[in-house]
Amino acid sequence: MTPPTPTLDDTHSASLRSWVPGAHDSGSDFPVQNLPFGVFRRTGDLAPRVGIAIGDQVLDCLVAEREGCFDALTPAAREALRAPSLNALLSLGRGAARAVRGAASLLLREDSREGVRARALQDSVLAAPREVAFLLPAAVGDYTDFYASLFHATNVGALFRPDSPLLPNYKHVPIGYHGRASSIVVSGTPVRRPQGQTRPDAGAPPLFGATLSLDYELELGAWVCGENAIGERVPLADAEERVCGVSLLNDWSARDVQSWEYQPLGPFLAKSFATTVGPWVVTLDALEPFRVSAFERAAEDPAPMPYLTDARDQSRGGFDITLEVWLRTAAMRSASLAPVRISRGNFATMYWTLGQLITHHTSNGCNLRPGDLVGSGTVSGADAGARGCLLEITQRGTHLLTLPSRETRAFLADGDEVILRGWCERAGAVRIGFGECRGEILAAT
Amino acid sequence: MTPPTPTLDDTHSASLRSWVPGAHDSGSDFPVQNLPFGVFRRTGDLAPRVGIAIGDQVLDCLVAEREGCFDALTPAAREALRAPSLNALLSLGRGAARAVRGAASLLLREDSREGVRARALQDSVLAAPREVAFLLPAAVGDYTDFYASLFHATNVGALFRPDSPLLPNYKHVPIGYHGRASSIVVSGTPVRRPQGQTRPDAGAPPLFGATLSLDYELELGAWVCGENAIGERVPLADAEERVCGVSLLNDWSARDVQSWEYQPLGPFLAKSFATTVGPWVVTLDALEPFRVSAFERAAEDPAPMPYLTDARDQSRGGFDITLEVWLRTAAMRSASLAPVRISRGNFATMYWTLGQLITHHTSNGCNLRPGDLVGSGTVSGADAGARGCLLEITQRGTHLLTLPSRETRAFLADGDEVILRGWCERAGAVRIGFGECRGEILAAT
Repeated sequence: MTPPTPTLDDTHSASLRSWVPGAHDSGSDFPVQNLPFGVFRRTGDLAPRVGIAIGDQVLDCLVAEREGCFDALTPAAREALRAPSLNALLSLGRGAARAVRGAASLLLREDSREGVRARALQDSVLAAPREVAFLLPAAVGDYTDFYASLFHATNVGALFRPDSPLLPNYKHVPIGYHGRASSIVVSGTPVRRPQGQTRPDAGAPPLFGATLSLDYELELGAWVCGENAIGERVPLADAEERVCGVSLLNDWSARDVQSWEYQPLGPFLAKSFATTVGPWVVTLDALEPFRVSAFERAAEDPAPMPYLTDARDQSRGGFDITLEVWLRTAAMRSASLAPVRISRGNFATMYWTLGQLITHHTSNGCNLRPGDLVGSGTVSGADAGARGCLLEITQRGTHLLTLPSRETRAFLADGDEVILRGWCERAGAVRIGFGECRGEILAAT
Repeated sequence: MTPPTPTLDDTHSASLRSWVPGAHDSGSDFPVQNLPFGVFRRTGDLAPRVGIAIGDQVLDCLVAEREGCFDALTPAAREALRAPSLNALLSLGRGAARAVRGAASLLLREDSREGVRARALQDSVLAAPREVAFLLPAAVGDYTDFYASLFHATNVGALFRPDSPLLPNYKHVPIGYHGRASSIVVSGTPVRRPQGQTRPDAGAPPLFGATLSLDYELELGAWVCGENAIGERVPLADAEERVCGVSLLNDWSARDVQSWEYQPLGPFLAKSFATTVGPWVVTLDALEPFRVSAFERAAEDPAPMPYLTDARDQSRGGFDITLEVWLRTAAMRSASLAPVRISRGNFATMYWTLGQLITHHTSNGCNLRPGDLVGSGTVSGADAGARGCLLEITQRGTHLLTLPSRETRAFLADGDEVILRGWCERAGAVRIGFGECRGEILAAT
């Protein structure tokens, strides 16, 4: 976790200030140094549009583009800003997203000519929180979910195989599986408790009914940009250019369904009922000041294989992102109690870098397309307070979690709202954040 | 495998004849009783168009629609026939596809008024084989692959766990996993031998390189039509209405990669380099005369759980479809030797029906969208000659397959072309077929 020398451009300077009120308030996730992408609708208008977060406002890129605010960009990038999702921008590659972010930085700064002009248009180009409804950032072609936290894999493995928690492949292969794209929903969408087959008693027939062990998983999801042809591998040196940015991601899981169905082909219905992503894609460009080295392996750990080895990725492929899970039960809501934090981890503890995940994914020639989503896997750390799912926290439900409201949880109850948060802080840099990824559990039908 | 009383309409009558030459030649896959859907380009024209197979010709639905041949259909169905893929038609639901097939039947019959008119337009509405290039039938949102053959699961399980070939969940849960949608290609597309991590010697470090155990898997793929909202289950009685039809499907697999990577999350890069589908979607309506009862379970087998039980599905949820694998090596091609058949199975031997797969898939509320593809899993039968992949035929490469050319195979060699074929025959009905699903192996880069 040694901070490398960042590759900074002037969008990161701590001295920049936006003309948007509140953008630089203490604790703001969205100062002018961040500028993440999202997609939203404005009240009374059905057209989805690309947005960029600034303070608690959203820059409406459709309106801003029509007003000429992005005239310095290429025609293709301008067209992508008039599209109803980020797919068009992602298909232009990371350079286009970088150019848009650079242009937005100028527009939203108080000290630029572009900023003065945009400020005069603020009534039309800014959308206020009350008039914003978020949509998925992009139509996801394929959703892949990795398993890149050694701590998560070890903790979960220990519950099922106390003698050999970690499988022999783990430190060689970035383990992943294909997830379900159709049921990815944006933050704020309620999640229906799924039904499914379980077999709580191995001596009795299986049961069908609502899951009794509904869980969340704290993850980041990487949004793919650009495209490699089928059969074409992406070397590690080029891999990060295939990631536009990352969102918070909650990989909801029905543990009782999972343990009965998962052999030999992996998780299926235990996961495919819903996956929630945060509304904002925080670009790797915005995360540049928060780079750290890749996870430091133990001396006895095997070196990554040559195709997964690159000195630059090793020295700066990690990201120091604090990730938290907050919970608010129905009873807490009724009593007007605020959500309570139940874990805090850091993305820098992941065993594999984002670049390694992309390179491994394409190592067989698999084509990644713009808008594909690549989940990191549950982010858990070495500490007990850094476990990214209830399965780990409650040790498969055997050690109840007690909340300040005196309620206890083995797994999620109906009415529970899970809130993921993420942010980066570092001396000399301006704090940036991810907003929130929320989902409330509805009772099974 | 008791043939039920079929629900036949007049598109199935054995007395029907098409005006298209050759459509009723002996062995034709595409008499007027079939009429499968596909998507293709015509030489010299970039626009993809919906097609319907008849004899060795293709009815160009784009041209035929413009010529007024489909004027009896609803505006939405007509618009779907001008679309560049089947997604639009699939989104209208199975009834729309049924109506299009009915209209095409009238157009292509020699005894109808519509047929007389279409015949006069044959130079424009029919595309000859030499001017046809097939495309994927639909843009696949999500690709799911099941494991629905008891014989395949048992044969494969025996190779890895001789004492307990079948896992305890198999006869209760229709086992499946999410596959990769981006790398689905249409018949005729060459397949590059993938590279990947393997660990042939558990005492030595893993290796990275071209797979040494490249395999095919003989499957059918079901094309989903209509849409269920997230959270909404599809009861078994309604499940078949969510399947427009089925194609041949080859689930290429790198066995050495698979055995090293698959625990605990299932197959990933061992499969995601390519999946080949046949050009033609044979509708369940065309398959109606070839229905049989669901697979007959052994007396000691557990009954399917209530959500997977339906008397109608039990009595007529199976399909008597002969499925074959043919192989042609580079040496055979050089010597002008024809492909050789290496297995023949039947879809009626599958442990779970198509309806059960759909119902199970949505039992947790997972939404299936039009254009989703649901693979059956390898179709293997009880006989040694009915094994649907080389892993089973060569017993993991230990019993070489000897070809008439005197070549031997443990797994596929570069230059090998795998050809899947499928067809239905039954007394009183006209034979229909699936065409071919072809793929040739290119050397690794």
